[in-house]
Amino acid sequence: MAHKVAFSPSGLKGEIATDTDLLEAARQLGVAIESTCGGNGQCGKCQIQISEGEFSKYGIHSTLDHVSHFTRAEKSHQQTGYLRPNCRLACCTKVRGDLVIDVPSFSQAQQQMVRKTTNVSGLAIVPKIQLYRIDVAEPNMHDQDGDIQLVKKALWFEYGLTDLTVSFAVLQKIHAQLTQSKRHIAVAVRDNEIVAVFDGRIDNDSLYGVAFDVGSTTVAAHLLDLQSGKVLASSGKMNPQIRFGEDVMARVSYVMMNPEGLGAMNQAVTQTVTEIITALIDEAGIERARVLECVFVANPIMHHILLNIDPVPLGQSPFDLATNESLYVPTNALGIDVNDHAMAYILPCIAGHVGADAASALLSVNPVQYAGWTLIVDIGTNAEIILANDSRVYACSSPTGPAFEGAQISCGQRAAVGAIERVDIDKATLAPRFKIIGCDLWSDDPAFAAATADIQITGICGSGIIEVMSALFLAEIINEDGVFDANLAEKTDRVFAQGRTYAYKLYADETRVISVSQNDVRQIQLAKAALYAGIKLLMDKAGITQLDDIFLAGAFGTHIDTKHAMVLGIIPDCQLDRVKSIGNAAGDGAIKALLSTEAREDIETAVRKIYKIETAIEEKFQVYFIDAMALPNKSDAFPALAKIVDLPVANKDRPSASAGDSDSRGGDSGNRRRRRRREPS
Amino acid sequence: MAHKVAFSPSGLKGEIATDTDLLEAARQLGVAIESTCGGNGQCGKCQIQISEGEFSKYGIHSTLDHVSHFTRAEKSHQQTGYLRPNCRLACCTKVRGDLVIDVPSFSQAQQQMVRKTTNVSGLAIVPKIQLYRIDVAEPNMHDQDGDIQLVKKALWFEYGLTDLTVSFAVLQKIHAQLTQSKRHIAVAVRDNEIVAVFDGRIDNDSLYGVAFDVGSTTVAAHLLDLQSGKVLASSGKMNPQIRFGEDVMARVSYVMMNPEGLGAMNQAVTQTVTEIITALIDEAGIERARVLECVFVANPIMHHILLNIDPVPLGQSPFDLATNESLYVPTNALGIDVNDHAMAYILPCIAGHVGADAASALLSVNPVQYAGWTLIVDIGTNAEIILANDSRVYACSSPTGPAFEGAQISCGQRAAVGAIERVDIDKATLAPRFKIIGCDLWSDDPAFAAATADIQITGICGSGIIEVMSALFLAEIINEDGVFDANLAEKTDRVFAQGRTYAYKLYADETRVISVSQNDVRQIQLAKAALYAGIKLLMDKAGITQLDDIFLAGAFGTHIDTKHAMVLGIIPDCQLDRVKSIGNAAGDGAIKALLSTEAREDIETAVRKIYKIETAIEEKFQVYFIDAMALPNKSDAFPALAKIVDLPVANKDRPSASAGDSDSRGGDSGNRRRRRRREPS
Repeated sequence: MAHKVAFSPSGLKGEIATDTDLLEAARQLGVAIESTCGGNGQCGKCQIQISEGEFSKYGIHSTLDHVSHFTRAEKSHQQTGYLRPNCRLACCTKVRGDLVIDVPSFSQAQQQMVRKTTNVSGLAIVPKIQLYRIDVAEPNMHDQDGDIQLVKKALWFEYGLTDLTVSFAVLQKIHAQLTQSKRHIAVAVRDNEIVAVFDGRIDNDSLYGVAFDVGSTTVAAHLLDLQSGKVLASSGKMNPQIRFGEDVMARVSYVMMNPEGLGAMNQAVTQTVTEIITALIDEAGIERARVLECVFVANPIMHHILLNIDPVPLGQSPFDLATNESLYVPTNALGIDVNDHAMAYILPCIAGHVGADAASALLSVNPVQYAGWTLIVDIGTNAEIILANDSRVYACSSPTGPAFEGAQISCGQRAAVGAIERVDIDKATLAPRFKIIGCDLWSDDPAFAAATADIQITGICGSGIIEVMSALFLAEIINEDGVFDANLAEKTDRVFAQGRTYAYKLYADETRVISVSQNDVRQIQLAKAALYAGIKLLMDKAGITQLDDIFLAGAFGTHIDTKHAMVLGIIPDCQLDRVKSIGNAAGDGAIKALLSTEAREDIETAVRKIYKIETAIEEKFQVYFIDAMALPNKSDAFPALAKIVDLPVANKDRPSASAGDSDSRGGDSGNRRRRRRREPS
Repeated sequence: MAHKVAFSPSGLKGEIATDTDLLEAARQLGVAIESTCGGNGQCGKCQIQISEGEFSKYGIHSTLDHVSHFTRAEKSHQQTGYLRPNCRLACCTKVRGDLVIDVPSFSQAQQQMVRKTTNVSGLAIVPKIQLYRIDVAEPNMHDQDGDIQLVKKALWFEYGLTDLTVSFAVLQKIHAQLTQSKRHIAVAVRDNEIVAVFDGRIDNDSLYGVAFDVGSTTVAAHLLDLQSGKVLASSGKMNPQIRFGEDVMARVSYVMMNPEGLGAMNQAVTQTVTEIITALIDEAGIERARVLECVFVANPIMHHILLNIDPVPLGQSPFDLATNESLYVPTNALGIDVNDHAMAYILPCIAGHVGADAASALLSVNPVQYAGWTLIVDIGTNAEIILANDSRVYACSSPTGPAFEGAQISCGQRAAVGAIERVDIDKATLAPRFKIIGCDLWSDDPAFAAATADIQITGICGSGIIEVMSALFLAEIINEDGVFDANLAEKTDRVFAQGRTYAYKLYADETRVISVSQNDVRQIQLAKAALYAGIKLLMDKAGITQLDDIFLAGAFGTHIDTKHAMVLGIIPDCQLDRVKSIGNAAGDGAIKALLSTEAREDIETAVRKIYKIETAIEEKFQVYFIDAMALPNKSDAFPALAKIVDLPVANKDRPSASAGDSDSRGGDSGNRRRRRRREPS
């Protein structure tokens, strides 16, 4: 039995089998609803409302009776106040009749902006594939050369090419192409194989390639001219796999629970890749058949799902990759529609937790060019950490969880219009001021209210959370252990009791209160402790105590204020002017690999030589983790930071960060971390 | 509008659109009807009868009114007596209502027998693909090896293999396979690429390959164990392209006239290839996924159609091949269902008229092993001729036409049960005796009538035609110019007037007369003159006048009586015991290529070095052609033959065959030959 179900505001509707849950119904109809737990009632993100009444537009009579009863999971989210009034969790609510479902803005999986700038200057452009224009002799009965032999002779005569093979597709069409273009043809040659043939009479034609960065949240891509190296168009879309689980572990968990899950997620992402290509070639006004190269970078789990390889081994110890080498895969084997003989190059994953995106960031930064030690950090749900000098490279990942992205934070949200992204707290009054995405004014500006009249202030994005925590710490509202000073509740209503702990109210209007809870602070502490401990471990292995350069990659790294990050001890002490956001370094590396065969060889060689550190089996990780729970850190000093920021007193005279002096302090928190890692969040 | 059409005796039926011709209707329903002209009314082979009445079995009321009117083409065949009473030509008759169509046995395209013996003794078996059984270590967090890296380490440790790559399909399934077979796996490696992975715990498993000889008439195949080299099963089917035209030129013509013709013929043959593979693996009881290699040999036009390459350029000067090199094509790109990563190796075509089948025959014979000059002749619609000694190889083809296969012969037919295949004529009485396929007795044996009571004597097959012509010549019923001795009509009713020429009656019963007409003799003369002239041309180029060995390949070569062939001057004079039928040499070469990478390299090298002679542009060809119209030959003596056969007097004291002494005799016949070549027959 099936029922009519319509979702607003998207207007998407269709027939849904009875007893299907609404999250699955949304998936089937292409409606994007937030969900981070894979649909088991845990995350509480997929809140929807059931519209009641007669909807002639859809031909639907929708009532509350047309769904299954309130579940225990929903009750639990209701008790904590997380489930909003009149809302249900889509994943817990089953279809029993015709329905119109309203997806509130806070539950809509939102589009994220894609950085369009790239940074690959100074690269020698020698792509894997080259185009050669030739005039091919007529066949004659004396030589008895076949068409392909005549083509090869022309390539030898005009360009000195030898030992060429030919793809089956070119063989099949060569005669027709020679005839059609009066024997003036252009052939594309890759690895000594003639892979495509075009009319050679067209002026100024070229071959094109697309560099993809397949992130858990966003799929970003750049279309490039492979001869000039110019970026012709850039585009990005949400990774549609978000429907199946917001972070990578939720997606692994989805595959574990759904036999068809891998195929569904693979199809979702390859379809998006094809849609992006269509958008790019439309924008640039080029022929699809001239797109002959694609490059992909991705974290290990996105890498496996893109390749339709079971990611489940990556979700549990020993985090077993299918391969840690680079790959060449025909795009049509990936289900991607460009030239039938386009080839996808996939950068190598470094380890089970350190992906091809990290390898690509390494390629982009190229630490060999810097004197001293360079740290590259790409912060996502897992932080991927690379420490390198001109001869050695160390890499690890650390399970920071999604807190930095605003998840697991009570008022956290994605970086989208209406999200608080910058925060300042007056040390005297403890009153905040803030900026939101979509408006350049601070909230204490007289024009702010008018300028944001059309924007709902909906939550705090990842960089906003860092700023507010840093501000809370610098204003001594929270202490170095991250605990709220209960006494302040008497001084200001900004600090208020919430059960047995306290919270800080950042913003309130008639519909919502945006505050930072003790648990929010704890989540960020856990996340940053994991990151810092990973960095510390690599510095240990390298035998250093001081960094020369820090590069923050990825969306979070782009928006984060480096000073606030250092105040919280997310990154080690460093000259602040040597800490840089490098934007989508993974994407830039992908472009390098697209334009340069040598770049591919460089990164393949580099990745083979990387010292891979598995944090889960390093005992010291736990020690460093516990110390890093403190703000900025229990054992490491921040002398460079202290010169420019007035840190609370307790932090001012710590010894410098040094390795190996705290072996005895391992304990519960480390165990807790490891437990978190193994459970899908 | 569509009508119900049923064919008997096959019982195949279906809906056919109005105005579809019956040959096309037969194609659509899978009914095999003879046709050599591509369906334009020329060949007159597709004779059918319209059954009248109520056919409750089919639910069809069939009448003569349900078809289009008699055409001019049919009238013309009726006037010559070629169109039998109550018959229509299927290609000229359009469906206008429900019909039951009877396909008489003489119009049924018949199954031909496939030789199952092979001859590849003494070959070192080193196939392109090898199977390695390994135990793969468990992954661990210290080494951070991916599954593929662990597999490679095992292959290095156990077999010393290095520099391996891995196919995408293996990458996708490696983890599941390792888990399922408890890390004991068997991997198939081709050209340093791991292309397939199997459970390694199975005893006595192997990999398998299929060697195909795709002939115009028959597709023959052998399934081999690639480790032992044993033939496990053999099978063959009619080439279903016969529906589209009986010989290769008719099929080229079909492609020229039908835009979808190439696709339809390609699909027909690849489907048959898959069916043959299914039959072979069923017979041998092996898994389809373990078939990882296929080898194909074919004449140039079958080669192109198999590869879905337009064969039209091969049908006209300059007979332009798409390629004259060998090819590796994934079987799934060919639409052939074995292991997804099976590879097809296609032997190189030698020239536009000398195919991969000829190359394969050369590989099979390996003339290097013989002292002196070896001639290899594969007689089909085109004769492919190779002349070689231990250091040089010459090749050409000659357009013999389909006469040797019984086509264009008034009572000719395929080699099938009921066909006359051996003939003897008493020189005194001029009475014949004969043997038919399906009975071992001569027709003058008292038991013959009883033994053949269930067999209709339907016509003369290719080898029968050679025998009857040789007998007619030796009995001096025809003279050295092939002309019937009109005076004999008075001596015997076996010789009778037919219009302005004469004929010889071989057999008659109440339903039919099987005779040899002046035109039949002429057709064979034209065919054998073309063949002989081709051979002579190669001997010229090699500078020889005497052959040491002659090998006759192919179905016709297998059944032909070598003495009769020499009497007719089909082949030059040679010690009769040095003339051998070698069966399906093309198929044997395909088996060699399947089992030995070295054999592939050998034939590739050999083919590159072949001196290719294009008969159409050699002036001497015309001279040799005219001389070879005579029986056995106007200018060349047959001293070896004369020692064992009592040749008619005129032939006894000719000089030995010698090159270049007859330049002045060129004339009309040569021109006629060339014209024939360019027209589809």
